[in-house]
Amino acid sequence: MLKNPPTVAGYASVVGKREHEGPLREYFDLHDSTEKFGMDTWEKAESEMQRLSLNLALAKARLCGQELGAIFAGDLMNQCIGSSYAAECAHRPFFGLYGACSTFAEGSVLASLLLDSGAFSRCAVLASSHFCTAQRQFRYPLEYGCQRTPTSQRTATAAGALILASEGNGPYIREVLPGTIVDMGITDINNMGAAMAPAAYDTLTKYFGETGKKPEDFDLILTGDLGREGHGIICDFMKSAGYDMADVYNDCGLMLYDVDGQDMHSGGSGCGCSAATVAGYIMKRFEKKELCNVLYIATGALMSPASLQQGRSIPGIAHLVRISAERGE
Amino acid sequence: MLKNPPTVAGYASVVGKREHEGPLREYFDLHDSTEKFGMDTWEKAESEMQRLSLNLALAKARLCGQELGAIFAGDLMNQCIGSSYAAECAHRPFFGLYGACSTFAEGSVLASLLLDSGAFSRCAVLASSHFCTAQRQFRYPLEYGCQRTPTSQRTATAAGALILASEGNGPYIREVLPGTIVDMGITDINNMGAAMAPAAYDTLTKYFGETGKKPEDFDLILTGDLGREGHGIICDFMKSAGYDMADVYNDCGLMLYDVDGQDMHSGGSGCGCSAATVAGYIMKRFEKKELCNVLYIATGALMSPASLQQGRSIPGIAHLVRISAERGE
Repeated sequence: MLKNPPTVAGYASVVGKREHEGPLREYFDLHDSTEKFGMDTWEKAESEMQRLSLNLALAKARLCGQELGAIFAGDLMNQCIGSSYAAECAHRPFFGLYGACSTFAEGSVLASLLLDSGAFSRCAVLASSHFCTAQRQFRYPLEYGCQRTPTSQRTATAAGALILASEGNGPYIREVLPGTIVDMGITDINNMGAAMAPAAYDTLTKYFGETGKKPEDFDLILTGDLGREGHGIICDFMKSAGYDMADVYNDCGLMLYDVDGQDMHSGGSGCGCSAATVAGYIMKRFEKKELCNVLYIATGALMSPASLQQGRSIPGIAHLVRISAERGE
Repeated sequence: MLKNPPTVAGYASVVGKREHEGPLREYFDLHDSTEKFGMDTWEKAESEMQRLSLNLALAKARLCGQELGAIFAGDLMNQCIGSSYAAECAHRPFFGLYGACSTFAEGSVLASLLLDSGAFSRCAVLASSHFCTAQRQFRYPLEYGCQRTPTSQRTATAAGALILASEGNGPYIREVLPGTIVDMGITDINNMGAAMAPAAYDTLTKYFGETGKKPEDFDLILTGDLGREGHGIICDFMKSAGYDMADVYNDCGLMLYDVDGQDMHSGGSGCGCSAATVAGYIMKRFEKKELCNVLYIATGALMSPASLQQGRSIPGIAHLVRISAERGE
């Protein structure tokens, strides 16, 4: 629980074609149906999405980059180049993160703790993913046209940015809980939801256990991004632990697309999926006063193609952030 | 400057064959001349080095893993699998970092700030690299026997761990300065020293400028790992800015090996190089009271093989940590 809860001073989201065709289209700031954002490679396009989302969020917060104490950023590309090339234009202290799809929450946890303590007064949190960079890096060349399994998730082409500040009018980051790595032995790369759900269960039960709160205390409990498989698993797990989340629970991977209509199999994934959902849809609904108290738990699968080829299982992690319209209880 | 400087409660270093044949051999806790550490792949061996260094450091601090508030860790492997598989055994809150060779300092900066604020009372900072995992991932298959250029550095097979705590008898982390990304347009993957030196210059001149301190105020100014090329560049740059560091400056990449005798070209590199040097040599010399005030600046090159193939330049970063035997000035 943060004594001096930081506020969301600015937010922005940038998405690709499919994400802009999805049900959340009106909540995103910017999209490019070519998904290239004026660049000549997918990797540069992903960096550009992150850079655009940072600049838009700064503009909305009426700040210039020089007023940021630090930038916390990460993505899925090898050596996290999406973030380094995006952040180098800002010339601010930079903390590179790798938390797979949990990165946006990992950055929010760290930034919130350091704003709470007064180490910084304004920080940016960034994350992105791009279907085309992820597809060729983690799976198969795009040209191969590989068919996906029913349990597989689609890496979202999306980026999100939050500007967190020690002073402001909310919404506020009220509580954070960094996740612990949980590995239940899943080795199926096409079923990441199953690999990550136990980590979300671990973080959520710790949170409810320590705070005494219940699912019905929240307007929304939001995981990112367990997809359809993981959604079912976490609901079952939580129910057997005595927490019925059915009425308030959703998953960014299921919200970003019209899963059946857009043929998205198990839903969306990637750092950008929950980053754009939170820094687009969630923040705009807070602004409209349609949401007041949200639990955001971003999950990550911490394997690599090499570790899977070597027969290792998929470690999962889930970081939790509580966002509230009120500064005090 | 930290108001409640955290202390180094435990430290450990684990290295491979060449590192154990180098001039710092007596300062390392553990080595394996097969560099496999009982594992059947290089990637698992790297994780094992990190796990061993964490457990050794905990043992020296007389702590068990459950007493850690958080683990900050990173490595050079795609998706940072060295750290995730090492940390999953500890079952503690985990922050995955990517800062290339600057990771050990990046983790120390974050952990120190969060210990200073009271968010945690004990944290572990881990980093590793392995010649064989790096060689096949970043360069060529080992079997190819590729000849290195004179300016290239060798990725060290090494891991280091620090246990930082809010209470203890020192040495203390007194000041931290997170780095800003600096990109001077270098595109030569075999000259990382030149790509990273401007970032070290940026961080060092900011530090000296803000504190009013001078190089002669320190027993040792230690960069990690600029190698021979970067060492020359940073000395020249600093001299032209009015700071003569010649008498107190050294670089982890030049200290880890007998550079000429072991045919190491421009010296060592990799997250593990400065991690093992600091969590081995530097900490043991603090223990013997041979060092009292050290400035440690770890540098990282934030490119990837893909970004270089696409013709992009190499962004550099340098995070600074001041370690002192005294808690107060």
